[in-house]
Amino acid sequence: MEFAEYLPIWDKLTPQQQQMIAEVVEFRKVKKGTHIHDSSAECLGLVMVRSGQLRAYILSEDGREITISRLFEYDVSLLSASCVMPDMQFNVMIEAEKDTEFWSIPACLFKNLVDESLAVSSFANSLISGNFSELMWLMEQIMWKSFDKRLAAFLLEEAAIEGTSSLKITHEKIASHLGTAREVVTRMLRYFQSEGMVKLTRGAIEISDPRKLDDLQNG
Amino acid sequence: MEFAEYLPIWDKLTPQQQQMIAEVVEFRKVKKGTHIHDSSAECLGLVMVRSGQLRAYILSEDGREITISRLFEYDVSLLSASCVMPDMQFNVMIEAEKDTEFWSIPACLFKNLVDESLAVSSFANSLISGNFSELMWLMEQIMWKSFDKRLAAFLLEEAAIEGTSSLKITHEKIASHLGTAREVVTRMLRYFQSEGMVKLTRGAIEISDPRKLDDLQNG
Repeated sequence: MEFAEYLPIWDKLTPQQQQMIAEVVEFRKVKKGTHIHDSSAECLGLVMVRSGQLRAYILSEDGREITISRLFEYDVSLLSASCVMPDMQFNVMIEAEKDTEFWSIPACLFKNLVDESLAVSSFANSLISGNFSELMWLMEQIMWKSFDKRLAAFLLEEAAIEGTSSLKITHEKIASHLGTAREVVTRMLRYFQSEGMVKLTRGAIEISDPRKLDDLQNG
Repeated sequence: MEFAEYLPIWDKLTPQQQQMIAEVVEFRKVKKGTHIHDSSAECLGLVMVRSGQLRAYILSEDGREITISRLFEYDVSLLSASCVMPDMQFNVMIEAEKDTEFWSIPACLFKNLVDESLAVSSFANSLISGNFSELMWLMEQIMWKSFDKRLAAFLLEEAAIEGTSSLKITHEKIASHLGTAREVVTRMLRYFQSEGMVKLTRGAIEISDPRKLDDLQNG
C-alpha cells in the first residue's frame, strides 16, 4: 500500500479506517492537460500526488482564470473535495500541468472520516488553513503588488519549478495563471526584454538576468 | 452564563470543558473605532459577538486596507485566533465599526479544545471553511468585477446593514473597505450622482435610486 506513505495521518487511523481507505482509494495516471476536477461535476475527493504537477484555479463566467494553488509530489489537497467541507461554496478546477500520478480518496468516505476521527478532522483543518493562508497571500499580491512584480515573481518561480532558465510557456498560459489578459503579459514581457531581463524567442522565454528580475520583484 | 448561547457547540462540550471556558471567557464592551485585534500583538482568541459590528481587514505595508469579513450579533470568528490555527500565516486586524460587546475565549484554551475534542475541531473546520469561501468570493469580485459594480454592491449592502438609505460614511472609509484609493471612490460616486443613483451631501451619501444601483451591480 504505497499510498499510505503519501497520507500523513495514516498511522493515526484505526486498522478499520485504514482498511476502508485501502478498499476504495483510486490510483490514476493522467496526461498533461487533463482536467481532473471540475466543481460542476461530481466531487473528486482528497487528492494525494505521487508524481507530476497539478494546478488548482478558479474560472470566471467569461472564461478568465487565476491559479490559486499548485500541487507537487507528496502534496495532499482538499480543494478537490470542497463539496464535503462545511460552509464551502466555490468553484475550483484542477488540471494536470505535467503528466501526473495521483491517488484519490472518495469525498463521501473522507467526509465520514472527518466526522468520526479527531486526527482526520485536525488534518482537514490544517489543509484548509493552509489554503486559506495561500489565498490570503495571493490576494495581497493582487491587491497591492504591481503587475511587473507579480510577473517577475512568476517567471522566477516557474524557472525554479522547471529547473531551467528557458521557460516553454505561452503568454496566454501566463495570463491564465495571473488572472490577466494575454496582451498585458506580452506588453510587460517586451518591456522586460528591453531592460535585458529576459529574451523572447519563438515558444520560449529565456531568463537572461535573474538577479535583476529578483530585484524587481522585491523592489 | 449568557455566552453559552453564543457558542453553537456549547452543548457538545463535556461539563469539564464547559467549566474551563466559563472560568476564562472574557466579556468586553468597546467603543466604535477600537482595534480589538492586531496580529502583531498577542492573539485574541475565539470571538463571539453579542451586539454591535466588527470588521476584519488586512493591511498592506503602505497602509492600504481591504475588508475581508464583517461580524454581527451571534457571529463567531477565528480570524482573531489565527495564531493557534495550523499552517495559518497572515496578518488580520479587527476593529469595531460600532459600539460592540463581545466575549473571547483565549487562544491557548481554544487550541487545547480543538486538539482534544472532535466537536470543537469540526466547528473550527466549518469556521475556517466559511472564511475561505468568503475570501474566494472576494477574490473573484476583485479580479473580475469592475469597480463600479463593487461600489454599487457595497453601497446597497451598507444600506441594508444600517437600515437606511442615507449612509454616513466617508469616501476614505469606503476606499479602505474596497482596497482602493479615496480619489477612485470619489470619482465613481460623482459619476453615480450624475446618473441619478446617489445624491452626495456633506457627510452623507443618499441612495436615490436603489433599483438602478442594483441593476448596475448585477449587470
